[in-house]
Amino acid sequence: MLTPAMAVIECIPNVSEGRRTDVIEACAAAIRQSGVRLLDVKPDASHNRTVYTFAGSREAVKAAALALFREALSAIDLRTHSGEHPRIGAVDVVPFVPIEGVTMADCVTLAREVASEASAAHGLPVFLYEEAAATPARRNLEDIRRGEYEGLAAKLEQPDWTPDFGPSAPHPSAGASVVGARMPLIAYNINLATDRLDVARKIAAAIRHSSGGLRFVKAMGVELADRKIVQVSINLTNFEKTPIFRVFELVKREAERYGVAVLESEIIGLIPAAALTSAAAWYLQLDGFSDDQILEQKLRETAS
Amino acid sequence: MLTPAMAVIECIPNVSEGRRTDVIEACAAAIRQSGVRLLDVKPDASHNRTVYTFAGSREAVKAAALALFREALSAIDLRTHSGEHPRIGAVDVVPFVPIEGVTMADCVTLAREVASEASAAHGLPVFLYEEAAATPARRNLEDIRRGEYEGLAAKLEQPDWTPDFGPSAPHPSAGASVVGARMPLIAYNINLATDRLDVARKIAAAIRHSSGGLRFVKAMGVELADRKIVQVSINLTNFEKTPIFRVFELVKREAERYGVAVLESEIIGLIPAAALTSAAAWYLQLDGFSDDQILEQKLRETAS
Repeated sequence: MLTPAMAVIECIPNVSEGRRTDVIEACAAAIRQSGVRLLDVKPDASHNRTVYTFAGSREAVKAAALALFREALSAIDLRTHSGEHPRIGAVDVVPFVPIEGVTMADCVTLAREVASEASAAHGLPVFLYEEAAATPARRNLEDIRRGEYEGLAAKLEQPDWTPDFGPSAPHPSAGASVVGARMPLIAYNINLATDRLDVARKIAAAIRHSSGGLRFVKAMGVELADRKIVQVSINLTNFEKTPIFRVFELVKREAERYGVAVLESEIIGLIPAAALTSAAAWYLQLDGFSDDQILEQKLRETAS
Repeated sequence: MLTPAMAVIECIPNVSEGRRTDVIEACAAAIRQSGVRLLDVKPDASHNRTVYTFAGSREAVKAAALALFREALSAIDLRTHSGEHPRIGAVDVVPFVPIEGVTMADCVTLAREVASEASAAHGLPVFLYEEAAATPARRNLEDIRRGEYEGLAAKLEQPDWTPDFGPSAPHPSAGASVVGARMPLIAYNINLATDRLDVARKIAAAIRHSSGGLRFVKAMGVELADRKIVQVSINLTNFEKTPIFRVFELVKREAERYGVAVLESEIIGLIPAAALTSAAAWYLQLDGFSDDQILEQKLRETAS
């Protein structure tokens, strides 16, 4: 059994500042000082937005998220903010992701605590989304964010859009925030041995949820012009329920239908170990395999 | 980069006592008190032999191995020992295995240190084997152990069998010991949808090194009488050079030749995570994949 001492939660907040390096760094410092591990900072100037990735114990992650709200709200004013990416707040979205020794329910509880405390501290409207959503209508980030900061005052006046915490009016400079819990997301591309974009697009349409495909797949066909090939670009939003090997085999089979082979695939960024070990277990037809049989896992369990 | 603080070495000593529970437990206590994690204790009464599995830092593993020599040599007398399993010493064989953040070369150095110090402390002849062997003739444990304790005095008199450390005569009660370094061993079975033992035996012969097959495969065909099926039972002694997916695919192809399908496979005991993630990367055709992309690995690196 994993003990609470080993619990690891990941948090990937999106902050509406991608240009002023002093603000970006001050937010990073606020996160670091809370005892979490800051894994990545990705500012984007044209989006005018920065994605932070950090991880740690429940307590440290909570402290870091609240410290980030304080820092970002003191420095960012949405009234003068512009950028390509849709946003409704200074701290736009804060998802918590279970990594090790914690359940999704733990992350939902954490999301509610952070939403409640950040809202109370700053007089900020906060919505809960994805697994933390109070109703199905609030699961999707896109629905909550529709209308953006500029349309927020009107949106909050609608009875359907009373925030989960805080006032039914925007924070003047910080707008509103969206806090929630979700599974780790896997960004996964499959390159095809062809330059036919129509084939990549047909395969993407065949496998993605929105057009009848697999439940936790988002996909689109794109051209890699420099390599004269095409790619099926995939986001896998729940690798436990829609496993990566099933997506790969389905793409391979669909490609075959057009006389096209899979050239290679690639993971963008990070992938949870379980997504790979479950693929190995499936291909190797490993019956009765348990994660307890992974040597490193066993070592960590015994250590705790 | 992994830092030395995260280094983990595994050690799986085989001790020539599988019946007296007080001795088995005293040896376990000696290991535990050295600050390693004792993962498993497997006594076998008919073999009259116990296999301990422990892991920890370089220093802790060294201390535990030396403590085990002290405890076992004080309690075991080979002159009155009998059992089914071949053995030449009270502490019969001590392999060190690199797990995380250490190289094989580190384990070879550790094996030499332990061999030298145990030999000096107890006046014990010690042979180095596998990756730690000084000459190819001493790589195989079976060759060193041939003749067993009873033939040891005569063997040590041969110029070819001068021990790597210690006197050219057996320790009266403890015989000699074999210390070395090796890769983690994977015990892996593939069950076939047939009751034809000849098929399992032919496939085992086709894939194993000794009869022309893959370099790091030992295999035999066995009958699972209660399930009315047969099994190819495999030991994989270096999963980096002979990966598990290649073995599986070769068995599947050979079985096909006889009109037989693979029913399932199974891992016995523990498997290093890298053996599974490399299988996933191969089947999913993941190009340019690096272990740094495994989320949990990244977390641990950042923590150190």
